[in-house]
Amino acid sequence: MALSEFDLIRLYFSSFQQGSAVVTGIGDDCAELSLSPGHTLCTSIDTMVEGVHFPKAPDVTGLGWRVLAAAVSDLVACGARPVGFCLALTLPHADETWLAAFSKGLAEASRFFAIPLVGGDTTRGPLCLSVQVFGEVPAGKALLRSGAKPGDDVWVTGTLGDARAALDCLENTAFSEAEQVFMAQYYRAEPPLRFSVSLRDIASAAIDLSDGLAADLAHILQASGASAELDVGALPLSAALQDSYSRDVAEAYALTGGDDYQLCFTASSAQREAIFALAAEHNIRCSRLGSVASGAGLNLVRDGAPIDLTHYNNMGYLHFQ
Amino acid sequence: MALSEFDLIRLYFSSFQQGSAVVTGIGDDCAELSLSPGHTLCTSIDTMVEGVHFPKAPDVTGLGWRVLAAAVSDLVACGARPVGFCLALTLPHADETWLAAFSKGLAEASRFFAIPLVGGDTTRGPLCLSVQVFGEVPAGKALLRSGAKPGDDVWVTGTLGDARAALDCLENTAFSEAEQVFMAQYYRAEPPLRFSVSLRDIASAAIDLSDGLAADLAHILQASGASAELDVGALPLSAALQDSYSRDVAEAYALTGGDDYQLCFTASSAQREAIFALAAEHNIRCSRLGSVASGAGLNLVRDGAPIDLTHYNNMGYLHFQ
Repeated sequence: MALSEFDLIRLYFSSFQQGSAVVTGIGDDCAELSLSPGHTLCTSIDTMVEGVHFPKAPDVTGLGWRVLAAAVSDLVACGARPVGFCLALTLPHADETWLAAFSKGLAEASRFFAIPLVGGDTTRGPLCLSVQVFGEVPAGKALLRSGAKPGDDVWVTGTLGDARAALDCLENTAFSEAEQVFMAQYYRAEPPLRFSVSLRDIASAAIDLSDGLAADLAHILQASGASAELDVGALPLSAALQDSYSRDVAEAYALTGGDDYQLCFTASSAQREAIFALAAEHNIRCSRLGSVASGAGLNLVRDGAPIDLTHYNNMGYLHFQ
Repeated sequence: MALSEFDLIRLYFSSFQQGSAVVTGIGDDCAELSLSPGHTLCTSIDTMVEGVHFPKAPDVTGLGWRVLAAAVSDLVACGARPVGFCLALTLPHADETWLAAFSKGLAEASRFFAIPLVGGDTTRGPLCLSVQVFGEVPAGKALLRSGAKPGDDVWVTGTLGDARAALDCLENTAFSEAEQVFMAQYYRAEPPLRFSVSLRDIASAAIDLSDGLAADLAHILQASGASAELDVGALPLSAALQDSYSRDVAEAYALTGGDDYQLCFTASSAQREAIFALAAEHNIRCSRLGSVASGAGLNLVRDGAPIDLTHYNNMGYLHFQ
């Protein structure tokens, strides 16, 4: 049976939960969303292409979670509360097994992040997924990349490098315990959404980690006109990563591997207590990696001595290189 | 030279005009948009895939216009005022000639529809374009598909079928005068944006014509729980279409061809004067095609006698069939 676009949406995507901000959801020409008074809209789009951003035979349910988590991660970077998302789904054909698995993972993430599906477009073509997320922040309160000041601390949430390690076992058919940790990080990322909303009055700048810590922190530094010194010994590495790789490779994965979907942020050193309290409240691991200074660029140190990023010989993922 | 994602955005997409609603545009994790007080957000996403929604060797500048016009058409359907758009651009490689031509057409449409580019994502993969548009309407004032009532008139703007006729000459290298009309309609559609904003207090229901009048009007009827009778003799056909095709084919193209990006709407017959006045003010052709009744389904008549849509043997474009 060939599924029409309308059948496909009705069967797989119309039972998603609705949010309080949704005036008109799936099924009209536009979704209509009502923001809270005094709030601005934060919005971002993220695309994943088969064979580029995920393997040709992925965990399809995991992919459904991952594509939404990666987009929600941009809301997290701004401290925005989720309001809704749209899905542009391009598929070679309407494969019902695929659609059932994909929409299951997408629905799970939709519930987890409390972000309802409000609209989308389904088209025929090479497998490609774009998710546009909508969130809201009180006007003037969005976390930006540009607010880091000399003297601020540099922080990250979670552990880094596990999603990069997943690329080494993505095509396996059986997984070690460590590899299961990596795969969970790859397919089931949990960007720290509620934590970041609470961080709005505490952090000075923030970015989500999608291209790797070194590349993403560089965006904060460039936007803020500042430099930073980062202690590679303080990088938060999972036990699985440390057990599976040499220290050098584990650090390289943490610094330059992408897809962590954790938060990197800067904050005045006067906020340390507040940050640890917030981390405990939200059960989020928070690691202080170094500090912001004047000048430009990212400087790495180990035990106080400078080291060169090229030491790791594995730069962040640049989409067109 | 390989262009990085950051170079690509800076070179081709950072000089777009900014709008008054844009708090933070391209370059942070999210775009931040400020809506007018008392307004809700209308948003929609539209995807176009090479070889499916446009030919493999398209007029690339025209494609830049077309992909935005098609998405803006959904704002038009809701009577929303544009606020901004995001572009998800998936390209096999960063071809600078292609990017220069594409961004030129996109920028022209961006100015024409007064809708600034506020964010996006560029990825490597088979050519695929998704545009998410944002607009605003006073709360409760969005034109929906569901408001048509028995006795209402059925209207369309512009002429229909020309974009369908373009499919017959899309791969040509030279074009007759009529074919130039079709190609302009295909690549340079102008959904009646300002007209539809004024129509908010006049129309009872609306939809944009992307899949063909018969299929799109059926959505209004289904959402409104109504039927309609439509006089095929009243279909607005361009001189180019009438000169190039038999009456039957011209009507089939007007009824079932997609990509017109005109507006179909219903309104009380008491509004006829107001609609003609508005059409004159905005220099928009407006044609009354028939009327809404109780029941369900779309009934076609010619000179008062019923005819069957299957007579035209060419249904609207169903994406997965």
